[in-house]
Amino acid sequence: MASPAADFSKTGSGDAAIPMVSCTISEIREIIAGIRSNPEAVVGLVPTMGFFHQGHLSLMRAARRDCSFVVVSIFVNPAQFGPDEDLNTYPRDLDTDLKLAGREDVNLAFVPTVEAIYPDGYDTYVEPGAIAQGLCGQNRPGHFRGVATVVAKLFNIIQPDRAYFGQKDAQQAAVIRRMTADLDFDVEVIVRPIVRDVDGVALSSRNSYLTEEERAQAPVLFQALKAAEQAVAEGERDAVKIRRLMRRTIGQNYLVEMEYARIVNPETMESVPVVDRQALAAVAARIGKTRLIDNLLISP
Amino acid sequence: MASPAADFSKTGSGDAAIPMVSCTISEIREIIAGIRSNPEAVVGLVPTMGFFHQGHLSLMRAARRDCSFVVVSIFVNPAQFGPDEDLNTYPRDLDTDLKLAGREDVNLAFVPTVEAIYPDGYDTYVEPGAIAQGLCGQNRPGHFRGVATVVAKLFNIIQPDRAYFGQKDAQQAAVIRRMTADLDFDVEVIVRPIVRDVDGVALSSRNSYLTEEERAQAPVLFQALKAAEQAVAEGERDAVKIRRLMRRTIGQNYLVEMEYARIVNPETMESVPVVDRQALAAVAARIGKTRLIDNLLISP
Repeated sequence: MASPAADFSKTGSGDAAIPMVSCTISEIREIIAGIRSNPEAVVGLVPTMGFFHQGHLSLMRAARRDCSFVVVSIFVNPAQFGPDEDLNTYPRDLDTDLKLAGREDVNLAFVPTVEAIYPDGYDTYVEPGAIAQGLCGQNRPGHFRGVATVVAKLFNIIQPDRAYFGQKDAQQAAVIRRMTADLDFDVEVIVRPIVRDVDGVALSSRNSYLTEEERAQAPVLFQALKAAEQAVAEGERDAVKIRRLMRRTIGQNYLVEMEYARIVNPETMESVPVVDRQALAAVAARIGKTRLIDNLLISP
Repeated sequence: MASPAADFSKTGSGDAAIPMVSCTISEIREIIAGIRSNPEAVVGLVPTMGFFHQGHLSLMRAARRDCSFVVVSIFVNPAQFGPDEDLNTYPRDLDTDLKLAGREDVNLAFVPTVEAIYPDGYDTYVEPGAIAQGLCGQNRPGHFRGVATVVAKLFNIIQPDRAYFGQKDAQQAAVIRRMTADLDFDVEVIVRPIVRDVDGVALSSRNSYLTEEERAQAPVLFQALKAAEQAVAEGERDAVKIRRLMRRTIGQNYLVEMEYARIVNPETMESVPVVDRQALAAVAARIGKTRLIDNLLISP
């Protein structure tokens, strides 16, 4: 594995080489077939919507550690955005993304067009069940259908041995684990921990939407989760009381509007009434116009 | 490729050897991985619900011709049966099926249990769109969702290069082509012609339900399709008139109840008003309690 220093030497400048970039499905299939001609090859996929932060980079690093060939896909997936959501304003910066991926020694970036992924006449969707109904699924109908569909497509295009997702999107990770098992994809799904800013805010490409004043409010989500963890550590088991505590911590003012604060089973995303085993505390709130989510595994 | 005579010699008796049988997903994955260690291997899959007739055998023969390793799956898929349909009475005869597959030189039969395919907690479905709404989709809600889901699973388990389906189930074939393209499965879908009995009746495992009296009525479906073909050959282009002709030919009596008679686009299954290019004439009727379907490509 090349160290960052070795990367720098590739271009003879201070920058790492950017990875190969492929925009078409047929081209990426050909590249992967070439890689697969070595039976020892281990292909890792990091599916992303781009605008990389340290959370994405931690997934690439994990893939780089485990796999001989690392593919990062960069695709802002229209199917997972609702009609009133931020598809058009979602932040994009491909040049910077490729440089950052290069520094993590990523081999290949798959950057398809919307037309390549959803050509005219496209009409098949992967529909997750109960796991996609609560939490974010309740406020974003169709969101997880879009996620499951694009990930199924990426699995079929790239046929990775391993695929890497962030725990920040805990319900997404659970949906993908479920889909991968249910549809018998021969892919190992790996979920990596949330990367946080110094004040506890979970890194998210959407944090770039926040004004300075809004950003100052953002830590309330993690504070609510820590309060829940603390309460459980002190013996509280009643999910209703813990949820109330989270709601109180998030509070409400002209900038902050809570969407949900739940205690759920980490695999099924079903609400649990009592924290008698490991559970997931999950919160969503709007800070200004920006919807943020966060979560924390808590154990009695 | 072994001839039937060569097959017989395998066992030294009058019977061909039966293929390997695998009932678990992990075992079949292991077998296929072994086959794939030869990079020249070409894996063909014939997905079936068993109770083989010459239609199934023609698919196996086509797969045998094209592929180095032929897998036949035998699975009566609960997800594609409606609550009032014939899941429990669907005909089954595994011993005979294995012998027949052996004569076609099939390498491996995949015969999973329902629990292996839909384990506890199963909750992900592949949902085809408009293509699955008309024709059989209208009378069998959820049917094509069940078909698309199990075929997606079989594609992921067996990872075939080619998969073989019969034109008798024309809408099913169209749904699977669409799904395979939409979800980027790296599988070539091959659809083979209908095999018919001497009186024109399309072979179907469900024909075994028919009493002698009912079986005598069954040719009306094909007769209606031939009448449509004849009318088009004689210059008729108006789908309404052709449909009327098909309905008249099927007729109605205490044994025969027509379900639909349509002229559709062979790829999209959308109704076409005018037969100005190749179209699919498709009919469904109940003969007694047995639902039969048939279709014919007709060209102006």
